[in-house]
Formats: sequence, C-alpha cells, structure tokens
Amino acid sequence: MPKRKFKYFPMVIASPSGGGKTVVRSGLLKLNKKFAFSVTCTTRPRRPGEVEGKDYYFVTVPQFLKLRKEGRLLEWAKVHGNYYGTPVKSVMQVLEKGRIPVMTIDVKGARSVKRIFPEAVTVFLLPPDLKTLVQRLRGRGEKPENVAIRLETARSEIKVASTFDYLVINDKLPEAVREVAAIAELETRKINRNLDKVRAFGSELARKRF
Amino acid sequence: MPKRKFKYFPMVIASPSGGGKTVVRSGLLKLNKKFAFSVTCTTRPRRPGEVEGKDYYFVTVPQFLKLRKEGRLLEWAKVHGNYYGTPVKSVMQVLEKGRIPVMTIDVKGARSVKRIFPEAVTVFLLPPDLKTLVQRLRGRGEKPENVAIRLETARSEIKVASTFDYLVINDKLPEAVREVAAIAELETRKINRNLDKVRAFGSELARKRF
Repeated sequence: MPKRKFKYFPMVIASPSGGGKTVVRSGLLKLNKKFAFSVTCTTRPRRPGEVEGKDYYFVTVPQFLKLRKEGRLLEWAKVHGNYYGTPVKSVMQVLEKGRIPVMTIDVKGARSVKRIFPEAVTVFLLPPDLKTLVQRLRGRGEKPENVAIRLETARSEIKVASTFDYLVINDKLPEAVREVAAIAELETRKINRNLDKVRAFGSELARKRF
Repeated sequence: MPKRKFKYFPMVIASPSGGGKTVVRSGLLKLNKKFAFSVTCTTRPRRPGEVEGKDYYFVTVPQFLKLRKEGRLLEWAKVHGNYYGTPVKSVMQVLEKGRIPVMTIDVKGARSVKRIFPEAVTVFLLPPDLKTLVQRLRGRGEKPENVAIRLETARSEIKVASTFDYLVINDKLPEAVREVAAIAELETRKINRNLDKVRAFGSELARKRF
C-alpha cells in the first residue's frame, strides 16, 4: 500500500460538530511527540499572537483559490466566510520528520485524504449518545438555531461514517485520546506496512544453508 | 462483515516453527480472561492427566476423517503421524460465551479460518531475526536435520505472510503478548464491527426534532 517510505502515516480524526475532534487532537499532541500538527492555510485575518507557518499559513483569497485549483490542498472548507485548507506539503513535511500528522477535518474531507494518502488512518469520533452531543453543543454557548443546524449536518455526516477505518466513542476524553494513540501504534503492525521486514526475513532465509 | 452477533472474533496466531506462537497464546490466556482455548481434536492417544473436552477431544482416525469430510474442521494437520484439527463447534462455543478463541495453527491454516470466519483477526509472528529463530529451534533440543527441515518449511511459510492482517515481532515475549492483546482490543473499534452503533446514533438523530 504505502509507496512512500515514511515511518508513519497521516491520522485523520473526524466527528460531527461537538464530537470532540479538536480536544482529542490536542490530547494526542500532548501525549506523545510523535504526533504533530500539519499547518493549515486560511484566508482569515491573522490574530494577535498567531505565528505565520506555525499556527497557520495566512493567504489571500486568490492565493487560496490558486492552491485549490492546482490540487495542492488535501481538503478544504469554507467556514463563516473564510477558507481553510490542508496543504499536501505541510502533511508531507511532518511525515518526512518521521512523525504523525494529525488532521481534524470535516467528515467529508476524509475521503479526499485517502485519495492522496491511501495509507492514512481515519477515525470517526462519536459521543456516547445523542444527549451528550446536544449538551456539548449547548455547553459551547451555541444558539438553539445553530445547535439545530449542526445536528442536521450530523445526520448527513453519520451516513458516511462507514467509510472510516475506526469508531472511537468519546465518552471520557483521556480514554478516547489513549485509544486513538493506541490505534496509531498498532496500525504500524499491519502486515501491509511491514512487507519489507517480511521480505528481508525471507531473503535471509533463502540465502543461508543450514 | 460479521453476520454473527458476537462481542469478539477468533484470533489466529501463526508463525514458522520456533516463532513462539504457543508461548504467546499461553501468555494471552494468562493475561486476560477474555482469551480462551478452543479445544482441538486429535487422534493421538490420551496421556495421563489429560482431560477429554478440556485438553483435547480424543477421536479415532475414522472419526477424525468423518469430521474432516463433513467440513466440521476449521483447519487440520498431520503431525508425527497423528491428526490434529480445530472443530468449528469449539470455536463457536468460545464466541458464544463472549470470549476470544485463540488458535495457534500453521501458517497455511489461517486462510481456511478466514473462509469460515471472515471476521477473524490473523497475526503472523516472527522472531527479530533469523539467528534468533535458529537459536530457538536448537534451544528446544531439535536435531540439526530437524532444524534444517523446519527452516526449509519457514521459507514457504514466509511467502504467504502477506495474507495475514498483522505482523508482530516476537523479541521480548511479554511485549509480544501485550501487543497481540492490544490488537484484539483495538480490532473491536473497527468501523465495520460497529455499524450497529453508528446506525443507532443515526436513527436517534433522525427521530428527534430540535
């Protein structure tokens, strides 16, 4: 499967709004240095304290549209009138450093990632039940009409959940983080990520006479 | 994928002779009660202390051949003139109890298991290097000619390793055991083993008005 010779692969975490993808990603980055941000580009204005190339790549709308047109974005979305997108390059840079780029993207973006990185591992995050999801959305101070819109969106998002690799129930955050980290670790044991080791053992065996 | 409604699925551990499948299985059974033996049937005579239905099902050669002909064996092998085979029924009994049947079978038997239990998880176990494999075989007191035969067999076994799901390097035994146990646990998070949960969440979402 993976033609590239990296130690790791991109991890994609997606969930309906309120599912907890952002906090799970933060938890992963704190848990282990092998997990890293892949820097996103955005057309939204830079806020005080934000560092170019660290927090975001700040681009103009024409620059963004050019990146998108040239296929340099792994996925993109327009949120509150601003564009956000993940440059393929920023994911590659993390992989080249032998780390795991963790992407929190919307549910539909996961498929685009797999097209470019078929070795990516995709995790769908769900709260333990609908009541919890609604509570989380309300707890964020969302207006009732926004909660309704997000739940409407969740309906269509749930329908594509089966295209993901794993389902993690985000009941207690530290547990969900540990689970996603364990998935990343054990994915490295998948046989199709280790065919080189198997072949090396086979060749050694073929060369020797006992 | 799984049509049956069991909590778990069979785990198959295979390795070339000397790879450590039997000790890894014992380690799993000690580590966690969710792992269980699936009793094998054999035509070899019962030894003192062995309990029918616990250690083995002791059968006659005609009985064994009948089981095999009727497709009641998941896989079988002839070792030192005696037949050994895993009855489908004994695997089912473990699954029905909500536990994980752990099977250590020869490399070629893994495919037969997947035909009957497509939800089975298969792990290929390799020693860290060829030197270690040879040392382990010699350490078991195998005669040089037997070591040579087993390494010859290993050559053809390695060739089908790519049909397995996972590769675990059995360097330090406790670590290898923990790794296989973690694989079993995280396999329960695979999305295709959880489509019922996803659907339940989706239906709840569809029924409610917000």
